[in-house]
Amino acid sequence: MSEIHAARRAALQQQIATAGADAALITSGVNVRYLTGLVSSNAALLLPADGQAVLATDSRYAGTAIRECGDLELAIERFIEPALASLALARGNAALAFEAREMTVQRHQVLAALDGGRLRLVPLGDVVEELRTVKDEAEIELLARACAITAEAFSAVLDWLRPGVTERQFAIALERTMIDLGAQALAFDTIVASGPNGAIPHHVPGSRVFAAGDLVTIDCGARFGGYHADMTRTVAIGSPAAWQRDIYQLVAAAQAAGVTAARVGAGVDRVDATAREMISSAGHGDHFSHGLGHGVGLEIHEAPTIGYGKTGTLQDRVPITIEPGIYLPGVGGVRIEDTLVVRAGAGASGSAQLLTTTTRELLVL
Amino acid sequence: MSEIHAARRAALQQQIATAGADAALITSGVNVRYLTGLVSSNAALLLPADGQAVLATDSRYAGTAIRECGDLELAIERFIEPALASLALARGNAALAFEAREMTVQRHQVLAALDGGRLRLVPLGDVVEELRTVKDEAEIELLARACAITAEAFSAVLDWLRPGVTERQFAIALERTMIDLGAQALAFDTIVASGPNGAIPHHVPGSRVFAAGDLVTIDCGARFGGYHADMTRTVAIGSPAAWQRDIYQLVAAAQAAGVTAARVGAGVDRVDATAREMISSAGHGDHFSHGLGHGVGLEIHEAPTIGYGKTGTLQDRVPITIEPGIYLPGVGGVRIEDTLVVRAGAGASGSAQLLTTTTRELLVL
Repeated sequence: MSEIHAARRAALQQQIATAGADAALITSGVNVRYLTGLVSSNAALLLPADGQAVLATDSRYAGTAIRECGDLELAIERFIEPALASLALARGNAALAFEAREMTVQRHQVLAALDGGRLRLVPLGDVVEELRTVKDEAEIELLARACAITAEAFSAVLDWLRPGVTERQFAIALERTMIDLGAQALAFDTIVASGPNGAIPHHVPGSRVFAAGDLVTIDCGARFGGYHADMTRTVAIGSPAAWQRDIYQLVAAAQAAGVTAARVGAGVDRVDATAREMISSAGHGDHFSHGLGHGVGLEIHEAPTIGYGKTGTLQDRVPITIEPGIYLPGVGGVRIEDTLVVRAGAGASGSAQLLTTTTRELLVL
Repeated sequence: MSEIHAARRAALQQQIATAGADAALITSGVNVRYLTGLVSSNAALLLPADGQAVLATDSRYAGTAIRECGDLELAIERFIEPALASLALARGNAALAFEAREMTVQRHQVLAALDGGRLRLVPLGDVVEELRTVKDEAEIELLARACAITAEAFSAVLDWLRPGVTERQFAIALERTMIDLGAQALAFDTIVASGPNGAIPHHVPGSRVFAAGDLVTIDCGARFGGYHADMTRTVAIGSPAAWQRDIYQLVAAAQAAGVTAARVGAGVDRVDATAREMISSAGHGDHFSHGLGHGVGLEIHEAPTIGYGKTGTLQDRVPITIEPGIYLPGVGGVRIEDTLVVRAGAGASGSAQLLTTTTRELLVL
């Protein structure tokens, strides 16, 4: 893996030079992991525009850093950020780019006061986040494994979707099955929203008992090798009413259209619009209250955002979610979501690779 | 509970006036919860030094806020921080204290640029964190329940501590039992460190299989009502060697001495020294590499820190941990930790109330 990380750092070094900085101080944990491979709750990277990177962490992670990041200069320090910033000064890198999205005002003040205020601290912008958008095949394999665990666990717990079981009981059964099937952790807290709770996009599973006639929306995902799966299915407990079938078919059609639209070169606002217009045309525009999707990777929500008013186009090897929903306040809801990878395929505009493979037909349990 | 939250806000208002600010913008989620009762991943509070507080959150939490915080002025907004800061300006509160420990540089820049830069943003300091140190009896009851669940779960899974079981298997069994016994969540990721891994204070449970002759250190805790239990026990698998008994007895004696020293009025550095000197006198000073303990409450680590060089004295109704350890690199380790409440008792200097009640005798399994 160290060659992959070296290539990522080289790509960032070009951006540091372009930004007019001498070096960058990377403090976001997930960005440090992306650029070095080190998994740590306390690590930072000093990357000069030209020259050797220095990875700082504390004594708890020293062994891991020596073993896994031996190609980097290491600094084992109690206070990693002032140590790296002082090192930047000592090496003549006074123009230091920092991650303003992650750095707190308090920590920034410590750096700004170092050595009589000699550092010139400049915001780096979301440069590393943008580099992370396009994945390599090794990353896509880890994400695919996370998605496979998610789909397998979902299938394994379907018989818990019956009257008398609570949302919370089902969530726990599903989460435990993902762990038993090899997930390192959950990608996020599972959503289980039954009956009227289905109208709440981020409902926290509670004590409501499933009943015949419910639609139940389940939004879940496993984490594997640091990569986050994200899948939503809505199922019916007992024979669904006509209105339930109607909104299900509408969401399923909009979701399929969104997946088809997710091609290399497509504008993210247009992908959103493709699905949204189908829902709006059927009179449910006000009942689809969130964006169509988002990037996934080392974070559960990352660039790009697939939504109204967003800019940018999809590129090859960008994993995203497509997740339209219809939410009827006080009544119920439907959401269907897949994780997929935008691919430059054989055709002119390519086609998406679906990673979450559970059926999108309405399951009646 | 709303009277409790109103009293907490009144205590903070005095500090805002003292700091020379017109109002405070509280953005730390746990501090917003402490001051309002609202549990939300996106909420902020505008508290004037004199006058009515405004609680902002987004539409996902609107229903909860209306139901639980009806005594507050509510602002349901997409971008909560600029909305509250603009409101502060509109109400003539231009000197706005903010939480520099939580606020990022990027969000601070947005506030600083509002309305042509009319806000005067001043750091609030750790004022709310200090208010949170002394708990009321309702908080202590929630913490005691979290500790009781932890101890009960620990007892229930003791028969998993046998040769052939992996660290990770045991950790999962313990975590699932805490959830089954009513924990809302884990207080933190469980540590299970067996044999030589016991020398690593924050070892992540892995594939190592327990073997006869191991010491196993288990650091675990349940969360209940937002409050975090923290308990560590070290057990022996099979009859312990003399060196294992020796360091166990030494840590147990130091832990008991630390608990006894944790009285109202005691300096936090002196409490640390009481336990540390016993370990140092036995020649293990270099093998006890962390502080003696920390406050617990709405966060797993909060004020006060019980350690060398720290200042301050313990007060009545302050929950803390006491957790000395001895770590022998490559060989193994012992840590014993309780959560307790410092109490002004019948005696001149009071005595601690132990919340984690699992035996501190060496368990041989």
